[in-house]
Amino acid sequence: MFQINDNYQKLPGSYLFSTIAKKVAAFSEANPDKNIIRLGIGDVTQPLAPAIIEAMHKAVDEMADAKTFRGYAPDLGYEFLRKAISDNDYKARGCDIEADEIFVSDGAKSDSGNIQEIFSTENRIAVCDPVYPVYVDSNVMAGRTGTYDPATEMWSNVIYMPCTRENNFVPEFPKETPDMIYLCLPNNPTGTTITKAQLQEWVDYANKVGAVIIYDGAYEAYISEDNVAHSIYECEGAKTCAIELKSFSKNAGFTGVRLGYTVVPKELKCGDVSLHSMWARRHGTKFNGAPYIIQRAGEAVYSDAGKAQLKEQIAYYMKNASTIKSGLQEAGFEVYGGVNAPYIWLKTPDQMTSWEFFDYLLEKANVVGTPGSGFGPSGEGYFRLTAFGSYENTVAALERIKAL
Amino acid sequence: MFQINDNYQKLPGSYLFSTIAKKVAAFSEANPDKNIIRLGIGDVTQPLAPAIIEAMHKAVDEMADAKTFRGYAPDLGYEFLRKAISDNDYKARGCDIEADEIFVSDGAKSDSGNIQEIFSTENRIAVCDPVYPVYVDSNVMAGRTGTYDPATEMWSNVIYMPCTRENNFVPEFPKETPDMIYLCLPNNPTGTTITKAQLQEWVDYANKVGAVIIYDGAYEAYISEDNVAHSIYECEGAKTCAIELKSFSKNAGFTGVRLGYTVVPKELKCGDVSLHSMWARRHGTKFNGAPYIIQRAGEAVYSDAGKAQLKEQIAYYMKNASTIKSGLQEAGFEVYGGVNAPYIWLKTPDQMTSWEFFDYLLEKANVVGTPGSGFGPSGEGYFRLTAFGSYENTVAALERIKAL
Repeated sequence: MFQINDNYQKLPGSYLFSTIAKKVAAFSEANPDKNIIRLGIGDVTQPLAPAIIEAMHKAVDEMADAKTFRGYAPDLGYEFLRKAISDNDYKARGCDIEADEIFVSDGAKSDSGNIQEIFSTENRIAVCDPVYPVYVDSNVMAGRTGTYDPATEMWSNVIYMPCTRENNFVPEFPKETPDMIYLCLPNNPTGTTITKAQLQEWVDYANKVGAVIIYDGAYEAYISEDNVAHSIYECEGAKTCAIELKSFSKNAGFTGVRLGYTVVPKELKCGDVSLHSMWARRHGTKFNGAPYIIQRAGEAVYSDAGKAQLKEQIAYYMKNASTIKSGLQEAGFEVYGGVNAPYIWLKTPDQMTSWEFFDYLLEKANVVGTPGSGFGPSGEGYFRLTAFGSYENTVAALERIKAL
Repeated sequence: MFQINDNYQKLPGSYLFSTIAKKVAAFSEANPDKNIIRLGIGDVTQPLAPAIIEAMHKAVDEMADAKTFRGYAPDLGYEFLRKAISDNDYKARGCDIEADEIFVSDGAKSDSGNIQEIFSTENRIAVCDPVYPVYVDSNVMAGRTGTYDPATEMWSNVIYMPCTRENNFVPEFPKETPDMIYLCLPNNPTGTTITKAQLQEWVDYANKVGAVIIYDGAYEAYISEDNVAHSIYECEGAKTCAIELKSFSKNAGFTGVRLGYTVVPKELKCGDVSLHSMWARRHGTKFNGAPYIIQRAGEAVYSDAGKAQLKEQIAYYMKNASTIKSGLQEAGFEVYGGVNAPYIWLKTPDQMTSWEFFDYLLEKANVVGTPGSGFGPSGEGYFRLTAFGSYENTVAALERIKAL
C-alpha cells in the first residue's frame, strides 16, 4: 500500500492568504452592499506598462508563423533575457554576475519553495520572524523543521530570528548556528530593511559559519535610500555563500504574468560540489522553462521605454505607501516600513491581536489587510497593509480608517 | 556547515536531451555546411493555431487596462479553463471529473517531476523500461531509488517493467508489488499503447495491491484506434487509484507556451488523507498559477475554431508519422508505434547500439533521433524518431535514410 509524505500532515491550517480570501468572501456574501478595499495580499493593480504589452503582442505574432515559432525554451532561460538581467541588475551595479549564473523561472514563489530541494534534509534553517510563509512551509514539506508546537506556533527545528520594534525589525545573529538562512530584504512583511554595511555582516557571518543565505530580493525596486544594497552580491564574499531570488511581480506588475529568476554563483560550493550544477539539474528535470512570450515581456522590462514606464509605476505605488504611512500616523497608529518597501507594518491598537484587528478593520472600515501573526509568532500584535491598491482606493481606505 | 541533497550525486551523466543537444552542436560546428534535420526531441514545429493566437492577443490587451488587468491567478487555475477541461476532456467522454479536481500547471514535465513530492520516500516505484527520464530522475532526487549500478544501468530500488518486441511493448504486472506505478500511454518513447481492456486490468491491479498509478496522458490527442482509452478515468475504479497528467504541448503545440494539468480525484485517499488536499497544498505553497494569458490560450484549445484547427495540426503530424513508418519499412527497418502516437520506435540494424546508430544517422544522413538506451536499459538496440518536424523535412529525412 502506498504511503504519503507525512510531513504534510504537520502543516497547521491552510495557507495564510487562502484563509484571508475565505474570510473576505464570507463577509462579502453577508454584506453585498459594502465596498471592500483590499490592501491585504501583495497583488498589484496597475496595468502592464505599454512597452511590455507591445513586446508580448510581437512575441504572440512570432508564435503564429512557422518561421519565427518557438518551441521548448532553453531550460535555464533565453539568452536575451539572462543577458539583460546580468547587464542591468548586476553589472550596472558593479556585481560580477554572468548571464549563465542566472536561472529564469516562473516566479520567485516557485523558486523560494523549490530551492531547499538541493540541500540536505538534515540542514537547519533560520528565518526571520515574522516571515513570508513559503520559506517555512516548503521546509516543513521536506521534513526539515521538526515538530510544531501549537502553543508557541513554532517548529522545534527552526531557528527563529525575531524582528520586532525592540530591535527595529533587524534580525540578530542567532545563538545556534544555522545551515541555511532565509533573508528577505527589503522585508516582507515588515517593510523595513537593513543597510549595506549590516548586510555585509550577514555575508561575513555566513562565510564564517559555513551557512548559505537564501536572499529574497523581490522588493528591491522599492529601495529609495542610498545606503541599502540592491543585491547581496554588492557585498564582498557573497558569491561563496549566497543564492539570490528575484521577482518581476512587484517591479513590473507580473503577479499574473509569472516570471522570476534565481542567481546561483558558480563559486558557491559545498566541498567540491557546485550548487550551480545542482540547480541546473533540478531545473532541467523538474521544470521546462518560462513561456517565450513571457520571457520577451521580461526583456522589455529592461528596455529604455520599459524602464521609464516602470519607474513611474513604482513611484505610483510608493505614493500610496506614503499616503498610508502618514494617514496612519495622523490617526495615531505606530507605523513602520513604507520607505524602501511597498509594505506598511503597524502595531495594532488597544492590545488587539492581529486577527482581532483584521476582523475589526474588515467589519468597521471594510478594509482588508493581513494579520501579522500569519507571518509568524513575533508578528502577533502587528498588521500589514500594502501599497499595491489604486491611489483612489488607498486614499478612501485611509479616510475610513481615520474615521474609526 | 550546510550540506547538499546527496541524492543528486547519484544521478549518472546529464539529462538525455542535453547530451543530444551537445553532440549535435559539436557536429554542426565541425560540419557547418550540413543541413541537419532534427527528429529527436519531441518539440513541435507548426505555429500556434489562429484561435489561440487571437485569444492571446485579447488577453494581452486585457492586461493593458486597469479595468481588465489580472494579477495573481487562483492557485489551482482559472475556473474558465478548469471547466473547459472538465467538460471537454472528461464529461464529454463519460468521465465524471469535476472542474475542482483539475489543477492547472505550467506543463506536464513539472507535474510529472513534482507529483512524487506528496508521497512517502519509502514508497517503491515501478516504471516501464524504456521510459521518459523525468519519472526516474525526480525519484532519484527524492531518494526513493536506492543505488545505481552502472553495469546494468538500473537502480536497486526501482521495479522495472521491460517493454520490448518480445511482449509487444506492453508492460506486465511486476513480480514485486510497487507502491507507485508510472504509466505513459500512448507511450513515450515506444509509440505503442494498450487497449482500454488492458488498462482496466492495471486499474484493477492497482486497487487490489494498494498502489497509485501516475498516468501520463500527454499523447492522448494522437489516439486513432477505437479500443484505446483517452483517459484512465474511462476505466472503472480509476478514481480511487489514479492521478492523470495532461499536457497542451503535443495536442496544441504549447511546448514553448507551457501549460498542462493534473487530475487528482477527490476519492483518491491514503487512509483518511485526501491526496487532492495534499496536491492543493503543494500547489498553493510551491507554485503561483499559470499566466493568465496562457490560460486564455488553453481555453481557446476547446473553442470550436480551436478544435477544428488543432484537428488539422494533429493530422499533419500523423501524416509525418505514417511517412516515417512506411519509409523505414521500405528501407527494411523493423518499426513500431506511429499509429496512436507521434513517435516511431525502430530496431537498430546490424546489432548497432542505440548510440552507435545515433552517431551513424547523424554523420551519414545528418538526421537527429533519440537513442533508445537513453530511456532505460531495455531501450538498448532501439531508436526513436518523432513526427513533429515539418512535412518537407520529414520526407527529406526519410529519403536520406532510404539512400543509406
